[in-house]
Amino acid sequence: MLDDSRAETLVAAARGGDARSLARLVSLVENGSAELRSVMRAVAPYAGSARVVGLTGSPGVGKSTVTGALLRAYRAAEFRVAVLAVDPTSPFTGGALLGDRIRMQDHATDHGVYIRSMASRGHLGGLAVAAPQAIRVLDAAGFDMICVETVGVGQAEVEVASLADTTLVIVAPGMGDSVQAAKAGILEIADIFVVNKSDRPGAQEVMRDLRGMLAMAARGEGAWRPPIVSASATGGEGIDELVTHLDRHWSWLAESGGRDRRRLIRAREEVSAIAIAEMRRRLGGLPGQSRLDELAAQVASGKLDPYSAADELAAF
Amino acid sequence: MLDDSRAETLVAAARGGDARSLARLVSLVENGSAELRSVMRAVAPYAGSARVVGLTGSPGVGKSTVTGALLRAYRAAEFRVAVLAVDPTSPFTGGALLGDRIRMQDHATDHGVYIRSMASRGHLGGLAVAAPQAIRVLDAAGFDMICVETVGVGQAEVEVASLADTTLVIVAPGMGDSVQAAKAGILEIADIFVVNKSDRPGAQEVMRDLRGMLAMAARGEGAWRPPIVSASATGGEGIDELVTHLDRHWSWLAESGGRDRRRLIRAREEVSAIAIAEMRRRLGGLPGQSRLDELAAQVASGKLDPYSAADELAAF
Repeated sequence: MLDDSRAETLVAAARGGDARSLARLVSLVENGSAELRSVMRAVAPYAGSARVVGLTGSPGVGKSTVTGALLRAYRAAEFRVAVLAVDPTSPFTGGALLGDRIRMQDHATDHGVYIRSMASRGHLGGLAVAAPQAIRVLDAAGFDMICVETVGVGQAEVEVASLADTTLVIVAPGMGDSVQAAKAGILEIADIFVVNKSDRPGAQEVMRDLRGMLAMAARGEGAWRPPIVSASATGGEGIDELVTHLDRHWSWLAESGGRDRRRLIRAREEVSAIAIAEMRRRLGGLPGQSRLDELAAQVASGKLDPYSAADELAAF
Repeated sequence: MLDDSRAETLVAAARGGDARSLARLVSLVENGSAELRSVMRAVAPYAGSARVVGLTGSPGVGKSTVTGALLRAYRAAEFRVAVLAVDPTSPFTGGALLGDRIRMQDHATDHGVYIRSMASRGHLGGLAVAAPQAIRVLDAAGFDMICVETVGVGQAEVEVASLADTTLVIVAPGMGDSVQAAKAGILEIADIFVVNKSDRPGAQEVMRDLRGMLAMAARGEGAWRPPIVSASATGGEGIDELVTHLDRHWSWLAESGGRDRRRLIRAREEVSAIAIAEMRRRLGGLPGQSRLDELAAQVASGKLDPYSAADELAAF
């Protein structure tokens, strides 16, 4: 059992650079451990200064390659960089995608780098709770930059992206879905677009389509206009330009007050996700033993409508 | 304003085959209208008999083509068939993907067919509430089969798939992600796999990889073993076999008690999603005016940990 003083010891060790203590803390987050309360209490005073970069895009666009290139670039500038690879596609197996991450183990002996895959395994609040908690732990451990890589462009990714200070949306030619997906919601979350695999056929068309869509999007005076970076991350092309835009966005956030605003939104989401997870827990109970099951049976048989059932539940 | 008696009139008209009344009802669901209570009360006695088929897969695998082929096959057998194309990728714009749907308008004059795209636009509970409600409305309107098509393989799609009696997971060669995605969670939700575009290079490898993964998955005595159907939906190949497996799964559900169980799970999810949406509404308030905002500010500044903040909220 992890009490408050043991949690404080672990957090202090992680802050001192002990990779095993840090790994232990992230595992507690990943498993939705009951001891998280102590951990979160212990990290609270130290979090809030890291720069959080979200990277999202469909499978196969090269997210890990872009992440790896950013990692090298910021590491060269003496940043301590953590990478959190979040897999929201697997609520059941908890099988995070480790394949591409292996090559990142080049950095295994570098204490300024921490790389971790995370699934929402067992976490009652799902990634909506687990991802911000993991960011908070890495932030408190002293990382200057935290790259959060998510698979896909579904709602879960949009939620995870909303945690970042800067969100990169990565697309690639020949994926069939790049522009379709762009239409369907990523325009709103992207601070920077990366057209990766720019040496492949169709890259120009993807650039053009994105430019066209951005030109149509209405943006107010002083608003951030997402740049589109053409890159070939495997060969390192476009990464300098990407870093320039990342730094420019970070400065813009500070000047526009967006940095504090995003931190506030992040905390808001985190607190309400925890409160909702708690309510889910109370609602859930064991199947067959809860009031919810009785009500669900009446709804399934057409005797009750779902709103009246929810009202009865809310009176619990 | 839609009161109970007006809702009953609309539902009666939709049951009588009036497409405009049905469209009105689905729009009320999509917009998360305050009048949904009346609608849900009016449909409750009539829902519960339709067969719900979920179709999911990454963008570009040909979900709409498979849906169209199933629609023709079941229509030929005199089923009344509704198609609900759900787009969970766009919580912001509400932009459902209509492109591929246009060719389905071949059926525009057929009263035994209803096709509708739906986004979670404005719906507080999101698709977790809107999708089951739309299914309930279509079910009550007398459709024998409701095909629910979702984009992607993220958590939202898994949730939508959990609403179906039978879930088809569609993959295609050359998408880069088919097997990666399969590993990461779709194995658990698939009742039937469709390898579409089977005439393309790589189709055999996708079949082999899926077979390999299924062979490794542990399944109990009497459990359903998901078949893998090779199809080229554009040319209609494999559709007869797919229909055979769909019918076989439907029979198996009846024999195993799975049909009632899935209906109960669906009602359970629906009721708890409504209850949670209500809690979210209470939590939310207007930004800057709620207790949540005050607490979030303390969390963002490190003065409070998120669990203690959630505890304070829960005491509201």
